[in-house]
Amino acid sequence: MRTPPDMQSLVDLRTRIDAGRLDPAGAIRLAEEAIAAREPAVGALVCRHPDPAVSEAGPLAGIAVGIKDIIDTADLPTQMGSAIYAGWQPKADAAIVARLRALGAVPLAKTTTSPFAGHDPTATVNPRDPRHTPGGSSAGSAAAVAAGMVPLAVGTQTGGSVIRPAAFCGVAAIKPSFRLLPTVGVKTVSWALDTLGLFGAGIPDIARALSLIADRPAIDLDGSPGAPRIGLCLQDFQDFHDFGGAPDADALAALYEAARAVEAAGARITDLTLPAPLPEAWARQPVIQRFEARQALAWEYAHHRARLSPELGAQLDAAQALPASAYDDARRSAHRARRVLKDLFREMDAILTVSAPGRAPAGLDDTGDARFNRLWTLMGVPCVTVPVPGNGLPLGVQVVARFGDDGRALAVARMIEAALSA
Amino acid sequence: MRTPPDMQSLVDLRTRIDAGRLDPAGAIRLAEEAIAAREPAVGALVCRHPDPAVSEAGPLAGIAVGIKDIIDTADLPTQMGSAIYAGWQPKADAAIVARLRALGAVPLAKTTTSPFAGHDPTATVNPRDPRHTPGGSSAGSAAAVAAGMVPLAVGTQTGGSVIRPAAFCGVAAIKPSFRLLPTVGVKTVSWALDTLGLFGAGIPDIARALSLIADRPAIDLDGSPGAPRIGLCLQDFQDFHDFGGAPDADALAALYEAARAVEAAGARITDLTLPAPLPEAWARQPVIQRFEARQALAWEYAHHRARLSPELGAQLDAAQALPASAYDDARRSAHRARRVLKDLFREMDAILTVSAPGRAPAGLDDTGDARFNRLWTLMGVPCVTVPVPGNGLPLGVQVVARFGDDGRALAVARMIEAALSA
Repeated sequence: MRTPPDMQSLVDLRTRIDAGRLDPAGAIRLAEEAIAAREPAVGALVCRHPDPAVSEAGPLAGIAVGIKDIIDTADLPTQMGSAIYAGWQPKADAAIVARLRALGAVPLAKTTTSPFAGHDPTATVNPRDPRHTPGGSSAGSAAAVAAGMVPLAVGTQTGGSVIRPAAFCGVAAIKPSFRLLPTVGVKTVSWALDTLGLFGAGIPDIARALSLIADRPAIDLDGSPGAPRIGLCLQDFQDFHDFGGAPDADALAALYEAARAVEAAGARITDLTLPAPLPEAWARQPVIQRFEARQALAWEYAHHRARLSPELGAQLDAAQALPASAYDDARRSAHRARRVLKDLFREMDAILTVSAPGRAPAGLDDTGDARFNRLWTLMGVPCVTVPVPGNGLPLGVQVVARFGDDGRALAVARMIEAALSA
Repeated sequence: MRTPPDMQSLVDLRTRIDAGRLDPAGAIRLAEEAIAAREPAVGALVCRHPDPAVSEAGPLAGIAVGIKDIIDTADLPTQMGSAIYAGWQPKADAAIVARLRALGAVPLAKTTTSPFAGHDPTATVNPRDPRHTPGGSSAGSAAAVAAGMVPLAVGTQTGGSVIRPAAFCGVAAIKPSFRLLPTVGVKTVSWALDTLGLFGAGIPDIARALSLIADRPAIDLDGSPGAPRIGLCLQDFQDFHDFGGAPDADALAALYEAARAVEAAGARITDLTLPAPLPEAWARQPVIQRFEARQALAWEYAHHRARLSPELGAQLDAAQALPASAYDDARRSAHRARRVLKDLFREMDAILTVSAPGRAPAGLDDTGDARFNRLWTLMGVPCVTVPVPGNGLPLGVQVVARFGDDGRALAVARMIEAALSA
């Protein structure tokens, strides 16, 4: 069984609606009831619409959506996880919110976010164990789906803010190819990195959602990927001083379990060591993120430094001294790495790696480490996290495909998901 | 004399301030007095700050700046040229506004814009002849500099909205390399194309401003470009059905005059015919712009279709039917063209072409044609327009350089400017 019993599956809901066994208003009520039951313990939501209009038409009619609170909504405040934006009401819907409405979906609630999608924690707990963080920065979007409150949630990833919380909370998620989903109306941290992502109960749910939102039906092709060539990659960048260590034994065990399962299902697995330009770009990703964040958050820094959260404030302090030349070098390094990665994908269909260094850390202070995510965000390539069933807190494995090949990333992820549940 | 007597030169003002002959408050008063004298006839401004704080420190202290009214300002409304945003007050400054303030400049006034930076006209007149359009969509920014109201103005270009109005109004302007200036806090039309640009009295003025705002001193190196290799390019794309015709005789005469002058000053001029991938990408640029505008303006279209301006409304109507596959094809075409252009720049330092098909059209209904601008915006390369002195309404020539080589584009433009005034 691929969907834990307490999650809502977008595909299942739509099947029931299409068969006349559920109407869109009833599906939205299911979400509202689940929110009433679970939200007090989880704290995934900032606010919700008290009386949402429910469309009867559209391929996502009846689908309640959680929207990360750095994404503009015309009918709900958008507060960036920060007191600086307390009560702030944008004029217009972000492009993705307008698109969701056009498809019939109901943007029902705003979900918690680390302040300005940074690394500082939220008060949201992990629905699988409230003593643990759900990860960040898209904490509320991952937790709301994991807790069965909504079948679909939207988050953003600049380093690892979609894939990591999804893995920690045991849900499926995709960070699509760069700019497949426009970030118009999303608070910018880093214009070269910020990427919208989708959370759902399982891979078919996020595949359906992405294909509709992006208006590219081929993304949701149900066909088998055949015998995909998969490179098993440990991202072993230990030559770099800020590597941060190998994944935990549990995370590695989940990775090898997924590899064995998908190999048994017909995939061809080979070991992959990433050539030097890739770890070099990985090491420079923080320069790009911080140099751009300094500019993107210049007004907040100039006028509200004292109200910035501790880690973000300190990062921006340090970023004031970053020279443009370091940024330009880092951008060139990323450009070289993208060319190398493109060549690698001539010989393989997907890369399989861990979604995070391990399970969700204990406590709420530490949202976890993005070191196994930030290279792929920088490369702009699609990443999908697949929950690996097991005991204890969730673990996930990450499927990475070529830029623009979101459908293949999802097809391989679906093959892994099926193989793991077989 | 490179600066017509009624324009304010940023470099001249800063020289006087640095020498103690003018203080920043006095320089801002000059702008306020010029606005009082010229604005009633020109109509370049939407609103201005009644009592601006004037910084005494910073390399742009004393510089009054006009800000196109699709760029967020925390202390002035931002109305997008549209009744939909009447009175709208953003929370924060756009990144470029925050940066200007950090440098000591005073964002003094918001300048008129075509609604959502589209093609529909504004009420602004051309300061060189009020019977003619100043061009668009950055109408007010070009006109405010041309009328001597401010020494610096910020605009945006998605097709040709910086270079064209600058040429029509007889001012210098640069559309820098894509994302050299971040568009955070700028209303999006097309995230792949939207580019901030700067208007000033002459090339040294915009070189100084860009080098400071982008924090890259090398952009304002005063050295000679030596004997630059310049490709003279007519953008003769007549094989494409929407070519729109060759430039006017006057525009061509100005181009050849500039080429002869800079050749006499030491440049090596060769004729350049652009290889097929470039006109092919040019022909597909509207697909990218319109497919993205449909998403970027989805909220406005869904909720305020009747209040959209005529041409933009009709364009968005037509864009609803654009398939994603056409967009993806157009993006691939642009990618191919960028590679070809990069190779071309191995053999030359700059391309010289017209800034617009001719002088500013008569009347205010037609803001002119962007067909000699939109390829370069799509390529993401720096473009500079140099006013060509002469009788009648202004004409400009356009210098294009390799991506990231904004300093070289400005150096060649400065050489042309000097050669034309010699």
